[in-house]
Amino acid sequence: MPSIGATCATEKQMKQMTETKEVNRNGVNVTALKGAMDAISRDSTLANFVFRSKNMWLDGGHNRSTISGFYGVGGEQQRETSFVMDADEPFVLLGFDRGANPVEFVLHALAACVTTTAVYHAAARGIRIDEIESRLEGDLDIRGLLAMPGAARNGYEQITFKMKIKGDGTPEQLEEIVRFGQAHSPVFDIVSNGTKVNVEVMKD
Amino acid sequence: MPSIGATCATEKQMKQMTETKEVNRNGVNVTALKGAMDAISRDSTLANFVFRSKNMWLDGGHNRSTISGFYGVGGEQQRETSFVMDADEPFVLLGFDRGANPVEFVLHALAACVTTTAVYHAAARGIRIDEIESRLEGDLDIRGLLAMPGAARNGYEQITFKMKIKGDGTPEQLEEIVRFGQAHSPVFDIVSNGTKVNVEVMKD
Repeated sequence: MPSIGATCATEKQMKQMTETKEVNRNGVNVTALKGAMDAISRDSTLANFVFRSKNMWLDGGHNRSTISGFYGVGGEQQRETSFVMDADEPFVLLGFDRGANPVEFVLHALAACVTTTAVYHAAARGIRIDEIESRLEGDLDIRGLLAMPGAARNGYEQITFKMKIKGDGTPEQLEEIVRFGQAHSPVFDIVSNGTKVNVEVMKD
Repeated sequence: MPSIGATCATEKQMKQMTETKEVNRNGVNVTALKGAMDAISRDSTLANFVFRSKNMWLDGGHNRSTISGFYGVGGEQQRETSFVMDADEPFVLLGFDRGANPVEFVLHALAACVTTTAVYHAAARGIRIDEIESRLEGDLDIRGLLAMPGAARNGYEQITFKMKIKGDGTPEQLEEIVRFGQAHSPVFDIVSNGTKVNVEVMKD
């Protein structure tokens, strides 16, 4: 099975990587990254991924997602463990604070994706990153959620995303890395531009 | 300080709630929900919320968000604990699988939000929910992330969201509850319609 990051699939292989002097920068195996891009250039189907999540309602505003396998690099990919995450609402929104709430998870996904995209591209360009920290805020009028009149929309009216970045580039280069991250981040695109969601109610 | 869910802010108060025969349905305090809507009808500023997240890059595709306080119901709201969540990439995307990846968190946020919105509205309408389970899939061409030509876009091309719902309503009522959840869910709106994100690079 072809694998984009095949060389770092196991600890043993990772040790071999180090021994063979592959380039690692910002925690990213740049040799494997360039190899992955070469492989995709030859066979674009390796770039098709399908990510999946299963969610179970528990009680009130409390529900739980389980995330494990996905499709990518030409085949089904299993993980050693599943990721389990709980969402809930805070007390003032009638939950019991058993997890961050769904709109807070959006801020996490957005920050995480722009950060990773920036770090990978910095690695590919030979720029060392020392620190990235970001703070996000989203303004929400809950009249939309409550189906009450008056809200401009149901979702965030806007999101403010402040990112601090330090590394061995010039301030201009580091800002350019952030802008490049923003310009290529999948979650930034989803959140900024929207994505078609097909909701199907299953009968049984 | 006004509080939308003030009656369920502490365990003691929650016990009092039960003693005073407030209506709880689907784990939602319907009496408090209706009280919250009345309070917002009288003072719409109570509906203004600001949610926040702080993210710190750790290494490669690994980063961590911390979510604690927020602004809502007219004031700053502190939580007893912070929620900490890690994102990473799987091995084939050159990470080390130390957390779900950012686009997977989007699926969680979306499922969680539509579920909660549906459950709250079912509670308000007097419909008992016994089960909600959903499965989501998002199709992603990672050539966008890698800044390679050929991808239609950087984010999900589409998301398929299959929801199973059981309760004491008719199949038509239960489907209507899902559609209502979809129509009022903040994350469904963000993901479907997009939200303006202002990225600011901090100089220091």
